[in-house]
Amino acid sequence: MVMKDKNPGCRIIGVDNNKEHEKKALELGIADEVLPLDKAIEKSSLIVLAVPVDALGKLLPVVLDQVNDQVVMDMGSTKENVIALAADHPKRSRFVATHPMWGTEYSGPEAAVKNAFSNKAVVICDSENSDTDALELVKNIYRQIGMHLIYMYAAAHDLHAAYISHISHITSFALANTVLEKEKEEDAIFELASAGFESTVRLAKSNAAMWVPIFKQNRENVLDVLNEHISQLRKFKSCLEKENYEYLEELIEHANGIRRILK
Amino acid sequence: MVMKDKNPGCRIIGVDNNKEHEKKALELGIADEVLPLDKAIEKSSLIVLAVPVDALGKLLPVVLDQVNDQVVMDMGSTKENVIALAADHPKRSRFVATHPMWGTEYSGPEAAVKNAFSNKAVVICDSENSDTDALELVKNIYRQIGMHLIYMYAAAHDLHAAYISHISHITSFALANTVLEKEKEEDAIFELASAGFESTVRLAKSNAAMWVPIFKQNRENVLDVLNEHISQLRKFKSCLEKENYEYLEELIEHANGIRRILK
Repeated sequence: MVMKDKNPGCRIIGVDNNKEHEKKALELGIADEVLPLDKAIEKSSLIVLAVPVDALGKLLPVVLDQVNDQVVMDMGSTKENVIALAADHPKRSRFVATHPMWGTEYSGPEAAVKNAFSNKAVVICDSENSDTDALELVKNIYRQIGMHLIYMYAAAHDLHAAYISHISHITSFALANTVLEKEKEEDAIFELASAGFESTVRLAKSNAAMWVPIFKQNRENVLDVLNEHISQLRKFKSCLEKENYEYLEELIEHANGIRRILK
Repeated sequence: MVMKDKNPGCRIIGVDNNKEHEKKALELGIADEVLPLDKAIEKSSLIVLAVPVDALGKLLPVVLDQVNDQVVMDMGSTKENVIALAADHPKRSRFVATHPMWGTEYSGPEAAVKNAFSNKAVVICDSENSDTDALELVKNIYRQIGMHLIYMYAAAHDLHAAYISHISHITSFALANTVLEKEKEEDAIFELASAGFESTVRLAKSNAAMWVPIFKQNRENVLDVLNEHISQLRKFKSCLEKENYEYLEELIEHANGIRRILK
């Protein structure tokens, strides 16, 4: 939406396997028209792939096969896998791999939020393998919607993403399952849920279709940080079991260190 | 603040061990005057105790000793301990035990948020042990600031609070420690931190002075739910280790059940 405000000539063509989503996107004015994939590629100068990362691996080569001088970008949450799949494609250099560090627990066209990306970070990966004009087009679009650009290699991106995004989703899913398991009175959850509970558990509403492929593709990094997380939780458990409240205080004060980083 | 808008005659006397907080409360208009505890009790009709739950256990008997027909209420996050400590006090019936289910990760007078409690729940515990007039006064105040009242026994409150509030804080502290441990590049946390990470980790900014006493007083319930949480996380770990993505999908879909309860 912001892109259209800033580029009055710009037209957005929607492509979705789900006919209901296509209809909704037109109704909401997110797309100006909807077309089948091949027609849409033919008519576009920029093709934005926003699908779960497993589908992306299949879709990207198909799209690149049909590309002349168009630019193709993705917005997936893992980067090594998709970049590896495109590595040997003759049109590799028309592809720009990106990950905007923002999302919500919702999906589909109704989940769109205007100005959502403003002041957020976007990671651009392995940019030296993209053509200069393709890179410039993608960078300009992200700048127009107010994002700041960060450059990384795919492997570094996937590692940092495991620490800073993927583990949050696992803790949130596990917390939801914990509470659903222990709290048999759902009315109590509904009535008592505090702002704190809501904010730690909201990511648990996220879609399995989106997240299973992310965890699969980033399996080793996620396992590594998940093991650390379980051992951190065990420290809290041990403090409570042994009634070691001095160490509990230390653990909490150490966690408060996050204040230095997140205001 | 809302209380003062609705009750123009109402005056608020602030009492705080920390002189800086007293000054700040006057500056921000949260208190009309500040006084030592005994003078404040003498001049008040309602005494609101808002201190960490360990201090509360010491403060409540001291306050009740000085009370004639004033009403005393607390707002602590655990209820069994404080109620037990007041149980045999001759003025027990002037005390109303409450827990408003809202807070932030911040503390001190500058953390005050106008209208914060509107539409949130407040739990009133063991209400049959409070005098009718005391209970009515407290209920009216909570109604005036827009909260809805829930009645519970202290033991039930502490159990539900462990599930719905206390465990969220432990997961958030542990997540902060996990990321601080794994992610040695603090710039990366700062730059990449997504909305999802911020919302799961924000409670980790909470104060040790407030939370150690809560975990101590609600130790058995918190340990019970923490054990469950660790075993839920182990299920995610096992799925990733064994590459069992069908079961991973099931775990996520089960967690999505939280959508039924939290809109």
